[in-house]
Amino acid sequence: MIEPLFVGLDVGGTTMKAGVVDDSGHSLACVNLPTEAYRGQEIGLERMCESIRQAIAAANLRPDQIAAIGVATPGTMDIPAGVILDPPNLKPWQNVPVRDHVQQVFGLPTAFQNDANAAALGEYWVGAGKDARSMVLFTLGTGVGGAIILGDTIVQGEHSHGAELGHIKIEMSQPRQCGCGRWGCLEAYASATAVVKRALEAMDVPGVRSQLSLCLNKEGGLSARDVFDAAAEDVVAAKLVEDTAYYLAVGAINLMHTIDPDTVVFAGGMVAAGDEFLERIRYHIHRLAFPVPAEKTRVCYAWLGSDAGFIGAAGCGRQLHRQLQSAASDSRR
Amino acid sequence: MIEPLFVGLDVGGTTMKAGVVDDSGHSLACVNLPTEAYRGQEIGLERMCESIRQAIAAANLRPDQIAAIGVATPGTMDIPAGVILDPPNLKPWQNVPVRDHVQQVFGLPTAFQNDANAAALGEYWVGAGKDARSMVLFTLGTGVGGAIILGDTIVQGEHSHGAELGHIKIEMSQPRQCGCGRWGCLEAYASATAVVKRALEAMDVPGVRSQLSLCLNKEGGLSARDVFDAAAEDVVAAKLVEDTAYYLAVGAINLMHTIDPDTVVFAGGMVAAGDEFLERIRYHIHRLAFPVPAEKTRVCYAWLGSDAGFIGAAGCGRQLHRQLQSAASDSRR
Repeated sequence: MIEPLFVGLDVGGTTMKAGVVDDSGHSLACVNLPTEAYRGQEIGLERMCESIRQAIAAANLRPDQIAAIGVATPGTMDIPAGVILDPPNLKPWQNVPVRDHVQQVFGLPTAFQNDANAAALGEYWVGAGKDARSMVLFTLGTGVGGAIILGDTIVQGEHSHGAELGHIKIEMSQPRQCGCGRWGCLEAYASATAVVKRALEAMDVPGVRSQLSLCLNKEGGLSARDVFDAAAEDVVAAKLVEDTAYYLAVGAINLMHTIDPDTVVFAGGMVAAGDEFLERIRYHIHRLAFPVPAEKTRVCYAWLGSDAGFIGAAGCGRQLHRQLQSAASDSRR
Repeated sequence: MIEPLFVGLDVGGTTMKAGVVDDSGHSLACVNLPTEAYRGQEIGLERMCESIRQAIAAANLRPDQIAAIGVATPGTMDIPAGVILDPPNLKPWQNVPVRDHVQQVFGLPTAFQNDANAAALGEYWVGAGKDARSMVLFTLGTGVGGAIILGDTIVQGEHSHGAELGHIKIEMSQPRQCGCGRWGCLEAYASATAVVKRALEAMDVPGVRSQLSLCLNKEGGLSARDVFDAAAEDVVAAKLVEDTAYYLAVGAINLMHTIDPDTVVFAGGMVAAGDEFLERIRYHIHRLAFPVPAEKTRVCYAWLGSDAGFIGAAGCGRQLHRQLQSAASDSRR
């Protein structure tokens, strides 16, 4: 029997990445195309199909050699319907029937999933969670995303709002406002945006001296990366980084006391902060969580970087393929 | 084919309740016995078996007419091992092999589960969650317990710490200390104990007048019930109740943004506070959660009262019975 092959497509705000992945989760080839969402959703859908075509060609394959496709996108969505609703990072797209379009163009079973969920499935399949039975993933970027995997199941929720981990509330008495408009969300404390905002506030205190002020006037202004880079030598930056580790630990603990997974994975830009930062997160987890999960839960960084999304999307295609095979086998009985 | 019958046993700090339940979740008979944990775990184990015997007799049945047993207990535990470790409410019991003991005495398949998880399964089976596909339950008492059910699966966690919902952290900057010794836990705000503690603090503010002060000198002192009873006429009590609704809403939202269940159930003593209190919880959920889950998630009180535990424990026995049947049927193929 020939090993089935899958295409995964991870649509991001700036670029989309598509690749062919085999049944063991190995990537055979991948391509990057600019998303250019501003050109509208018709062009967007065509661009998605073009990336899938190019990925298949890059692997020297034909579409009829592909068993299933998986597509992952950001933003608000109806996962069972396969529709992007009103994605903040893909403006001006609205109500885009991604799954049905791709399925129709290629005539192949097509799965649809949230991008953080797909990235988590990638890590769970062949990355940081590959020996786990359950996993929680936090993606740290402009915002804070998340995903929960139990067994081989992505917890996508009854209303496609599962694992909105950036929007669990961790502060009530002096809550910061979040990008979502609400208050006290983890994202308002631990995203890259929040790190910069907290840095600006810290520098605004009279009498505070920090080398971060040198970064303020550079092109693009102060970044979260600047804060992490300065932490070794600058007290203000060091405190900002330490607080970020604490906030992320609180996020992790809330999931450890809810899902109690065997692995918690941090993915995204802050992975560049290295092992020392991860150790600080672990320190606060040990200090604040129940002893048994604190001791036994594996806390680590993601392995797959920007490949996690398309590999995981392909993994979603693979799950769909297996479901269809199993249903066909049942009906033959 | 005869409908299988199950016995569920719910062991509490004060009493244990056992009952016979049919395959549709109807209770045929139940009995209550005092737990008297202080008499030691040998007597405790014998008492458990005695309640099971009495429940079977009360239903006019013989043990050989029972298909499986389920036992639910409070406290720290190793669920897969079927062992209570060091339960605060069952002192001085330690490392009690509950499941194996009951299984050996009756020669029947025996399931073991955490009491909040079992109560949730009871509600999910024949109570407030009976039409749900997924459910989160908060039990409000001296502490705050919780349970998560996805599909027909109890999320018990990799280290038996799933759904420790009283210990998700909702406050960082001015955290209250929790009974668990840690800080900022939901339980430190929303348990009956916390309501009383907050009431005492509120009355301790100079110049504050509240009719709650009349309750202070009664037998047993001020209770959470007193606070809820006084809320209609007393400003201080009304604020305490409103804050409690807010804290519980934050807890619910954190689960709605994690699990995104279709139903959130509140069980335990505060159910007596009635529909007005539930409306205040719903109000804060609508104000603070994402619009889609805020609108679509059902938020309600539990239906089964103190029967939920033994019915759900019987439900655990039923799940075990079905697994064993299905395994036997597979091996015959």
